[in-house]
Amino acid sequence: MGEIYFDNSSTTMVCREAASRIMDMLTNNYGNPSSLHTKGFKAEQTQNSARNEISSFLNVYPEEIYFTSGGTESNNLAIFGAAHAMRKRGNHIVTTAIEHPSVLNVMKQLEKEGFIVTYLKPDSSGKIYPEQIFKAVNPRTILVSMMYVNNEVGSILPIEAVSSAISAARSPALFHVDAVQAFGKLPINPKKLKIDLMSISSHKIHGPKGVGALYIRKGVHIVPRTYGGGQEKDIRPGTEAVPMIVGFGAAVKALPSFDIELKEMKKLNAYCRQKLGEIEDIKINSPEDALPYIINFSAGDVRAETMLHFLSSKEIYVSSGSACSKGKASYVLTSMGLTKQRIASSLRISFSRFNNLEDVDVFIDTLKDGLIEITKRPI
Amino acid sequence: MGEIYFDNSSTTMVCREAASRIMDMLTNNYGNPSSLHTKGFKAEQTQNSARNEISSFLNVYPEEIYFTSGGTESNNLAIFGAAHAMRKRGNHIVTTAIEHPSVLNVMKQLEKEGFIVTYLKPDSSGKIYPEQIFKAVNPRTILVSMMYVNNEVGSILPIEAVSSAISAARSPALFHVDAVQAFGKLPINPKKLKIDLMSISSHKIHGPKGVGALYIRKGVHIVPRTYGGGQEKDIRPGTEAVPMIVGFGAAVKALPSFDIELKEMKKLNAYCRQKLGEIEDIKINSPEDALPYIINFSAGDVRAETMLHFLSSKEIYVSSGSACSKGKASYVLTSMGLTKQRIASSLRISFSRFNNLEDVDVFIDTLKDGLIEITKRPI
Repeated sequence: MGEIYFDNSSTTMVCREAASRIMDMLTNNYGNPSSLHTKGFKAEQTQNSARNEISSFLNVYPEEIYFTSGGTESNNLAIFGAAHAMRKRGNHIVTTAIEHPSVLNVMKQLEKEGFIVTYLKPDSSGKIYPEQIFKAVNPRTILVSMMYVNNEVGSILPIEAVSSAISAARSPALFHVDAVQAFGKLPINPKKLKIDLMSISSHKIHGPKGVGALYIRKGVHIVPRTYGGGQEKDIRPGTEAVPMIVGFGAAVKALPSFDIELKEMKKLNAYCRQKLGEIEDIKINSPEDALPYIINFSAGDVRAETMLHFLSSKEIYVSSGSACSKGKASYVLTSMGLTKQRIASSLRISFSRFNNLEDVDVFIDTLKDGLIEITKRPI
Repeated sequence: MGEIYFDNSSTTMVCREAASRIMDMLTNNYGNPSSLHTKGFKAEQTQNSARNEISSFLNVYPEEIYFTSGGTESNNLAIFGAAHAMRKRGNHIVTTAIEHPSVLNVMKQLEKEGFIVTYLKPDSSGKIYPEQIFKAVNPRTILVSMMYVNNEVGSILPIEAVSSAISAARSPALFHVDAVQAFGKLPINPKKLKIDLMSISSHKIHGPKGVGALYIRKGVHIVPRTYGGGQEKDIRPGTEAVPMIVGFGAAVKALPSFDIELKEMKKLNAYCRQKLGEIEDIKINSPEDALPYIINFSAGDVRAETMLHFLSSKEIYVSSGSACSKGKASYVLTSMGLTKQRIASSLRISFSRFNNLEDVDVFIDTLKDGLIEITKRPI
């Protein structure tokens, strides 16, 4: 039996298509895109193909894609950049209590700078509702930043309501979406949803770590966070991480169609939920209509870390809370109002296209073994 | 005849040692260092080995190395971070006129914030002298930022004088070194030189693009530029670019000893300078005692881009000015007071350990061919 990797919302294995492109860029097509000679030009061309791959996937213009070092940098650039650019128009920002730390911790900084931030609270299943957005946005609002899919429970946020809420409030607000967990998993149309800024990351979709992008709608002005040699139109200078960028493009190209993969994931999700439901004391924390890639559940009174290590010893890899918070009590589940015990025992499994039904069977059997061994009780 | 890559100060080919480690991290050891399971732990361990590799190379502590996306980010983090942390102690900064754009453009931003920046000017060979530093530093100086080796002409700056100048002025200044062009090429001892912050990059030493590091001396406090999930002790959050970091470590490990490589480079440099000296109208712009990896020269009245493209058509890759400024007149050569024609015709060749004397022969012959073909004059 090989390992079962159910922690794909933390990070993923790089697909073979991306890995082989990266290798070529490292050792052969290794020029600097800023160099004027053929070797630089070839690297630039290949980089542009990756940009095109990503922009056509999103139905946006290639020149609206700015490469960064990943989701965290994209979120920082988008939110600081928008807030600082819009400072004269107002000082109010709307976000949610369940955003990623790279959004929430930027908001804390902006509060220190004098911005007023409204944090929308989720219900007990991790969901946010359009009415909350409409109520929160006002004419002084200069930014709405909302994730598309929550990383811990998989709830899908109503980002389609944001642009109407902004219009209804006659607010000048820019609209930023942290789409790191949704990109490549749910169709997203930034143009239709009137998204101004959108963060995406490579390593959640079988591309390499260390690269992401920020979509910046044409005509939207943000203040850069980094200053240097002019790369990425001065929005994000520094020699481009060309091999990673090309790997990112290859990973996007290798994505199956949404129809096919979502159907597979729904099957995997339903099967796993059913099997989890058959175990006494297991409570599902993800909403019914969550992104099927993610299931968050609590295992009675067994501490999450204890179960995580038991599973890990059997080469089954899952998460407790999010990987970013390294063992701290989940603020997402806390904001959902779950009991302390339920939070302390919460685990997240997250699928990818490289998982299958047999993996679920092995996982469920091992989980049961773990419950018996750890609690010394029959189940 | 294969290609001759003489543009190693722009970027380098990734060495085989680094490439194979990267491959393993992409497809096998792909965990997230923040994950609590074995797969995360293994990735973290491997990343720590890379950190140790780099820290022991520099004779510093592993916990003083913070990984970033590259030299530009390291420079931004160091300079903004130091200036903002030291704001209450003073508002004066000392740097040079020949720093990389990722230093100079940060300085421009800091000037907008009210900091006063002194730019030390080079002499006509691109050199800066200790007396200039002593004269510039005063009790209100909170930061001295100086590159170790200039990227365009290869001049070596007197960074060994900085800490004495700071002490002599009874200044609280932090000392930042942009060592991107020196790292792996000249011995650097941050402890001995009393360096507080030092930027290094992977892709100039046959490691991958998209990763670099900032050395932050223990006890030195700087303000972060990025906020997120706590990675790199909150100084530089975001899922670590583990494969690139590990590749960076492998590239450092693969470096030959300074003695051996510097000797080789001096030989290459002397041979190339001699051959260039035999061609009429060629003027060397690099100082005699420049880092031997870099030779900047001007080719009479032939525009640099014209010659660059001629050489490129013969698969010989050199630079005009620095890759970062993409064809703009070099501000480095301008600050050295060279004539416009000499600047317009300036080319930079930059060696690596993968070049040899035969490459120089082919380059010189092709350069001569180019001069004849372009000027329609015999040489």
